[in-house]
Amino acid sequence: MLHAVILAGGSGTRLWPLSRTGYPKQFLTLLGTHTLLQQTVLRLGESVPPDRLWIVTGKEQEWVVRSQLSTLPGLSGDTARVLVEPLPKNTAAAVGLAAVHVRRQDPQAVMAVLPADHWIEHQSAFVVLMQSAAGLARQGVLVTLGIVPARPETGYGYIRRGAPFAAPQATLLPDGQEAYHVERFVEKPDLLTAQRYLASGTYYWNAGIFLWQASTILEEIAAYLPALHEGLEEIAQCLDSDNAADTLAAVYPRLESVSIDSGVLEKSARLVVVPADIGWSDLGDWTTIHRLSPRDARGNALSPTVFDLESENSFVYSSQRTIATIGLKNTVVVDVEDALLICSNDRVQEVKAVVHQLQSRGAEEVVHVSRTVHRPWGTYTVLEEGARFKVKRLVVYPGAALSLQLHHHRSEHWVVVTGVAQVTNGDLECRLQVGQSTYVPQGTIHRLANPGAELLEIIEVQTGSYLGEDDIVRLDDLYQRGPP
Amino acid sequence: MLHAVILAGGSGTRLWPLSRTGYPKQFLTLLGTHTLLQQTVLRLGESVPPDRLWIVTGKEQEWVVRSQLSTLPGLSGDTARVLVEPLPKNTAAAVGLAAVHVRRQDPQAVMAVLPADHWIEHQSAFVVLMQSAAGLARQGVLVTLGIVPARPETGYGYIRRGAPFAAPQATLLPDGQEAYHVERFVEKPDLLTAQRYLASGTYYWNAGIFLWQASTILEEIAAYLPALHEGLEEIAQCLDSDNAADTLAAVYPRLESVSIDSGVLEKSARLVVVPADIGWSDLGDWTTIHRLSPRDARGNALSPTVFDLESENSFVYSSQRTIATIGLKNTVVVDVEDALLICSNDRVQEVKAVVHQLQSRGAEEVVHVSRTVHRPWGTYTVLEEGARFKVKRLVVYPGAALSLQLHHHRSEHWVVVTGVAQVTNGDLECRLQVGQSTYVPQGTIHRLANPGAELLEIIEVQTGSYLGEDDIVRLDDLYQRGPP
Repeated sequence: MLHAVILAGGSGTRLWPLSRTGYPKQFLTLLGTHTLLQQTVLRLGESVPPDRLWIVTGKEQEWVVRSQLSTLPGLSGDTARVLVEPLPKNTAAAVGLAAVHVRRQDPQAVMAVLPADHWIEHQSAFVVLMQSAAGLARQGVLVTLGIVPARPETGYGYIRRGAPFAAPQATLLPDGQEAYHVERFVEKPDLLTAQRYLASGTYYWNAGIFLWQASTILEEIAAYLPALHEGLEEIAQCLDSDNAADTLAAVYPRLESVSIDSGVLEKSARLVVVPADIGWSDLGDWTTIHRLSPRDARGNALSPTVFDLESENSFVYSSQRTIATIGLKNTVVVDVEDALLICSNDRVQEVKAVVHQLQSRGAEEVVHVSRTVHRPWGTYTVLEEGARFKVKRLVVYPGAALSLQLHHHRSEHWVVVTGVAQVTNGDLECRLQVGQSTYVPQGTIHRLANPGAELLEIIEVQTGSYLGEDDIVRLDDLYQRGPP
Repeated sequence: MLHAVILAGGSGTRLWPLSRTGYPKQFLTLLGTHTLLQQTVLRLGESVPPDRLWIVTGKEQEWVVRSQLSTLPGLSGDTARVLVEPLPKNTAAAVGLAAVHVRRQDPQAVMAVLPADHWIEHQSAFVVLMQSAAGLARQGVLVTLGIVPARPETGYGYIRRGAPFAAPQATLLPDGQEAYHVERFVEKPDLLTAQRYLASGTYYWNAGIFLWQASTILEEIAAYLPALHEGLEEIAQCLDSDNAADTLAAVYPRLESVSIDSGVLEKSARLVVVPADIGWSDLGDWTTIHRLSPRDARGNALSPTVFDLESENSFVYSSQRTIATIGLKNTVVVDVEDALLICSNDRVQEVKAVVHQLQSRGAEEVVHVSRTVHRPWGTYTVLEEGARFKVKRLVVYPGAALSLQLHHHRSEHWVVVTGVAQVTNGDLECRLQVGQSTYVPQGTIHRLANPGAELLEIIEVQTGSYLGEDDIVRLDDLYQRGPP
C-alpha cells in the first residue's frame, strides 16, 4: 500500500513579509484557494486515504498543521497522523521517523516523501507518475522524481542520470516513461553550467520527492548513517509502549542532523530517477509566485483591493488594505498588516538578506511573528499596543480552551463579540453571550473556553505595568504546554 | 498695526493618502516638526502677536485648527481668533469676512493674507519683506508677493509686472527691493510659454500672499463684487450683537463664490507686486515634498522605519510600519494606516485622478476619512470592525467631554487605559481610573468626559446589529453639534 509522508517542518524567509520564521510558506495561500500544505494533501486525491497520510512537523507548528488539515474533506485534526519532532533535525531524521511509523503499520509499505511547500501544476500526471514510481519502489530501489528542467535555473540542485534502469516486467511505467540509475547529484550550478545541463537532456531538477519502501530506506540509513539508524530503532521499539513520547524526547536531540540527500542518497547505489514533467515549482521567491499567478494584459498580478493605473509586469499583494499603484514597472509589492515589502523584480533573491539585516537591527517581531499569532486553541491578533495597555482580538475554535492561567502584572477585560464563552474567573463560572463581558483582576486564576459549535471571538483589553506574553502561569492546559 | 489672516479652509487630494478631503494638507506635518498651519503661524514670529492673528476655516475643521494652535507658545484654542465659515465660499468671501473683523478692531489695520498650506524656506527674508510690503499697503494699494520663479513651472499661475511703482518716500523697501504695478494675471502656461516667462524676468508666480488695509480691500470688493460687499456689511453690522452667529449663518449661503484673484485683483488698478525670493513652494505633490526633504547620497528621503537596499531617487513615507525597499528607482511610496500609494515620480500629478476613480468605485472611506477621526473633544481611531462589532480607541482632551447621547442599536463597553474618565451612564455618575470599565446598554443615556489634566484614552467595544456613526441621539453638547 502507498503511504504519503509530507515534510511540513522548516521555515523560510524568501517570501517575507507574508511568510515568517514562525509561519512558513507551507501554511500560506499563495495560489488558488488552499494553503500549500492543504494542496499537497488534496493533490494525492484518492491514491492515499487519510489513514496512510503522515505529516512530519515541529512542535511550534503542530496546531497550525492540525487546524489546516481539519478543514479538508475526510480529515480532522485528530485523525491525521501528525508526527511531531521535538526539535528540527533535518530531513534524514524526519524521513527515518516517518519510516519507523509506516513500517510498524505495514512492513511492506511504500512511502512517498513530499515537501509541503511546493507547487505542481499537472496534478493528474503527478498522481499517475507517483503510482508508477511506487511500483518501482516495490522492487527495493530508492526512487526520486527528476523534474525535467524548463529553463537554465541556477537556484536548484540537479541530478545527472546514468544508464537506463531495467525495470522488472511487473513494474509498468506509463507509455514512453523511462527510469535511470542516478550518476550523481550536483549543487546549484552557475548560469553557463545550467545552460549546458539543460541542453544535454540528461540532468533533472532535484525536487525532494522520493518513493521507497520504509524498510528499504531504513536499510540504507543503517548502511550510511548507522548512529541515526540506532536512534530510530530505539524510538521504534517504544512506539507501542507508554513511554513512547519520553523516548522520542530523549533520543531525538542526539540524532545526527543531516539531509537525506547528502546523508544517504548521494552515497546509495540503489537510487533511480524517474523523469517528471509535471509543472513543478518550489515557489522560492516572489517573482515565481508572480509568474504562476493569473495576470492582466500588462503582465500584472494584482489583489482585488489594488487600484492600478498603467503598471507593467508587477505583482501587488494586499491582505486587505486599499493600495493605489501608478506606473510601476517590474516591481513586487507585498503588503501585510505589520510590514510592507517593495522590491524590484530582479532583486527578489535579496529579500532573505534584508530579513537578516532587519533582524540584526532588532526588528525581531516583524521577522518572526505576524500580527496574528497561532495557538492550539485558535489565534490572537494584537489590535493596538500602548505603554500600559494592549488590545487583542482572540478567536477560539469550537470546543477549544485556553489554559487555566494567571498573570502577575496585568488585568484583563473580555468582551464577547461573536459566539459564546465559557469563563472561569476565580470562583466564578459563567457563560457569556455577545455583548457580555467580564473583568479578570491581576493574580486571579482564569480560563476562557468555547463551548459552542461556531467560532468564539472576544476583544481583550489588557492593562498593567508589564504586558509581555511571558507573564503567564499555566495551571492546566489541554495541549500539555508548559511554562512560556 | 499688521494683522495676519490665515486661510485654512479647503481640501486637497494630491497628497492622498496622507491628506484626505476631511483632513487636508495644512494639518499635516510634511517637513520639519510642525504642521503646515503651525508653521504658517510660527513663521510670523513676533511681527504679529496672537491678538492680531486670524484663522478662517470651515465648520468641520474648526476643532482641528483650535487643537493645533493650542500647542503653540502664547496661543490656546480659546485665544486664537478662529473665524468659521458656515460653508465654503471661495477666497473673496473668506478674505472679506476677515476684513470686516479686522476693520472693526482697527480701521487703519493692514492685513496679510496667507495660505495655511505652503512652504517658505527663507523665513526671515519673508518677514522683512512682509513688513516692507505692509508699508506699501498703508498707502492704499493692494500688494501681492510675486515669487521669483526658480524653474519653468507649468503648475502655477503667473503675474506679469508692469511699470515700477513709485513708492512714496515714507515707504522703505529693503535695499534693492523693487515694486511694480501689475500688468496682468496669466493662467498656468504650457512648458514653452513657461520657459519664455522665466527668461523674460518679468513674470512671477502667484502664491496667493497679499497685503492690504482691510478698508482698501473692502472698497475694492464694493467696486467689483457689490453683492458680496453688501452681504459682508450686513454681517459687519451685527458683529457686536447677540445674533451675530445667526446673521452669519443666514447671509453666508447667498454670498457669491469667487476667488479674490479673479473677482477683484485681476480687475483692480491698485495692485502692486513685490518680487519675493523666499524659497516658496505650494507643496502641491509628492515629488515636491521629496525635493524639499533631507535626502541621502542616492537621493532618497526615507522615514525612520524604512529599511532600504540601494534604492535611488525615491521618497518613502511610513507612518509607523516596517517597510523594506529593495532597488526602487524614482518611486514615491506613502504608507498610512488604511491605505498605500506607490507611484512613479513622473506621474504624481495623477494621484488626484486616482483618488477620483477610487471614490467612484465606492472607496469613500479611504478617500475622505483616515482611520483616525478628529472631533471637538479629541479623536477616535477604529482598531477593528467585524460584522456585528467595532473596536475604537478614543482620546479625550483634558477638560473636554463627548455629547450627552444615546444609541438605539448598539451597546458599548468602555475600558480606561490612560488617564481618568468621568462617566454618566443612565442614573449612574462615576469616575473611572486606568483598568476600570463600564457597560452602556443600548438606549441608555450616557456621556464620557475627561476631568483630568492629562489625556484620557479609552478602548470602546461596540456590539449591535447596526454600528454606523449616525446612530446617535445628542441630548446636550458642549460644541453645539446637532443631529449627526
